[in-house]
Amino acid sequence: MGYFIGVDLGGTNIKAGVVNPEGKTVEKLSIKTNAERPMEDIIADMGQIALDVTAACNLNISDISAIGVGSPGTPDNRSGVLVYATNLPFRMAPIRSVIGKMTGLPVYIDNDANCAAMAESVVGAAQGIADSVTITLGTGIGAGIIINHRIYSGFNQAGSEFGHTVLVSGGVLCSCGRKGCFESYGSATGLIRMTGEAAAQDSSSVLNRLIKEKNGKISAKTAFEAMREGDRTATDVVDRYLEYLADGLANVVNAFMPEVLVIGGGVCNEGDALLIPLLSKMEGKTFFGPGVRKTEVRLAKLGNGAGIVGAAMMAKACLEDGLSG
Amino acid sequence: MGYFIGVDLGGTNIKAGVVNPEGKTVEKLSIKTNAERPMEDIIADMGQIALDVTAACNLNISDISAIGVGSPGTPDNRSGVLVYATNLPFRMAPIRSVIGKMTGLPVYIDNDANCAAMAESVVGAAQGIADSVTITLGTGIGAGIIINHRIYSGFNQAGSEFGHTVLVSGGVLCSCGRKGCFESYGSATGLIRMTGEAAAQDSSSVLNRLIKEKNGKISAKTAFEAMREGDRTATDVVDRYLEYLADGLANVVNAFMPEVLVIGGGVCNEGDALLIPLLSKMEGKTFFGPGVRKTEVRLAKLGNGAGIVGAAMMAKACLEDGLSG
Repeated sequence: MGYFIGVDLGGTNIKAGVVNPEGKTVEKLSIKTNAERPMEDIIADMGQIALDVTAACNLNISDISAIGVGSPGTPDNRSGVLVYATNLPFRMAPIRSVIGKMTGLPVYIDNDANCAAMAESVVGAAQGIADSVTITLGTGIGAGIIINHRIYSGFNQAGSEFGHTVLVSGGVLCSCGRKGCFESYGSATGLIRMTGEAAAQDSSSVLNRLIKEKNGKISAKTAFEAMREGDRTATDVVDRYLEYLADGLANVVNAFMPEVLVIGGGVCNEGDALLIPLLSKMEGKTFFGPGVRKTEVRLAKLGNGAGIVGAAMMAKACLEDGLSG
Repeated sequence: MGYFIGVDLGGTNIKAGVVNPEGKTVEKLSIKTNAERPMEDIIADMGQIALDVTAACNLNISDISAIGVGSPGTPDNRSGVLVYATNLPFRMAPIRSVIGKMTGLPVYIDNDANCAAMAESVVGAAQGIADSVTITLGTGIGAGIIINHRIYSGFNQAGSEFGHTVLVSGGVLCSCGRKGCFESYGSATGLIRMTGEAAAQDSSSVLNRLIKEKNGKISAKTAFEAMREGDRTATDVVDRYLEYLADGLANVVNAFMPEVLVIGGGVCNEGDALLIPLLSKMEGKTFFGPGVRKTEVRLAKLGNGAGIVGAAMMAKACLEDGLSG
């Protein structure tokens, strides 16, 4: 088998890379998405960057076996149509037919969170593991389910939206319209909200000094930094955040029973300050009967490059399975 | 292919049936479990009832292709060992080897909630549907996941424990040790608890009269009955219960994106009084982008016999897949 191209469509950039069959990226390029353009122009640029990145590493298009595209929203890999994409002007976008015509290659499409999970499953923290789930804690919460080395996205290719499962019935209003979603409590955005609320309620907290130093900006690091300075209010915020996060991640485990649960995203840069209490809290929340093998929690290994690798490895899997692209 | 035997191991009864390849039960038997006995005696009885039910319909053991056993707890179908069973004295029980020796047949084992889902998927409410989830609302909440016509139970065969995903972080203590599980709010037990609390808080409620008429016994029907008499407090209880139930079921949808979500259990006997407001509440809680196909919610078609049929059809699927039994 030859090389694969992974295209990572984002709100800001379109990235593309040539990836070998082992999941190693040999060349990559990035261009601006300019998301205010008509979707036809963006799709044409996606096809062009695939051709450009191939040329950039002195390969011919005949050296490429297939193209994989990862995008936000709901790409339908059966029809090759991107049904819609969050924050992008895509509705029923004919990704496969357009890029297929431009390149003469099979084109497969899947959700970006699913592609990130595929990447962790092939060359990352869950390498060699048949059943894993990757949860990315960022502005939102991304969830990708891998079952028997393949992406599982439900009958409508729209899953898993585990970030939009309710954790706090009747709780904070989420961007999706529900109240109390896991995403509203376990994401960086959730932590930032809790940090701001706690700072407002305790004028003596170190949190207020740190926020002032950043010109009023609160980040997911703020509470952890104040905690390291011994601030009680910040310690409470981190503890409360980790309690929610542990509840949400234990929900993932109890629902899917993956062999490995991978967690990634900026919050995970806190390392042991996050992981040690998190694992301790999860211990009491996961559901394993006596003698039953337990899910292992690991930190994600791949960073921003996961989108390209995951899309390429998704395409490789589809080709191996004989799916039409 | 010949017939299949389904054995349904419960805390009170062991039921067994001969099932044809289309999922129709042609004969069945039931004996007491007598769960206080050593597990070896119970397993021997399970093998014997399989032989007995075969004889009862004038078949020979050579007419049977395989035996399927459904049980509570975590049966490991790879090893053929029932790792443990809730409320039964089973620890690492060698179901396959013992019943296999007694009958000379391949023996497959799976969880009872998974078998119920398999039955709904083959001959019940999700017949012909590749991806479905069956949720049973009883004393607890059972969840069975069917992906591509096969049971999905995770890497350790212990899933899905969707009943033990947290819906109300920090909420009511569940039998599993967690706080705020879906099971504690969406099960019949949850409804009964809410009914009792509401009755205690409002002495003028019709609930108190109904409970007195039943000698202090509250059932999952009590709140619905009082609601039909126009009682405001009972109407509030039902509304609150349905809100939790809708949250929990929408969580199932958003996590798994099944084509059909089947709901069963005694509470579903309330029919439209349950289903109409439930579907309306779920509408705002499920997560489908524009143009994305939606999950359909259906009431379970099979009752108590689902355990036998599901275990038999699980065995048929395992045999078709060439799994060693």
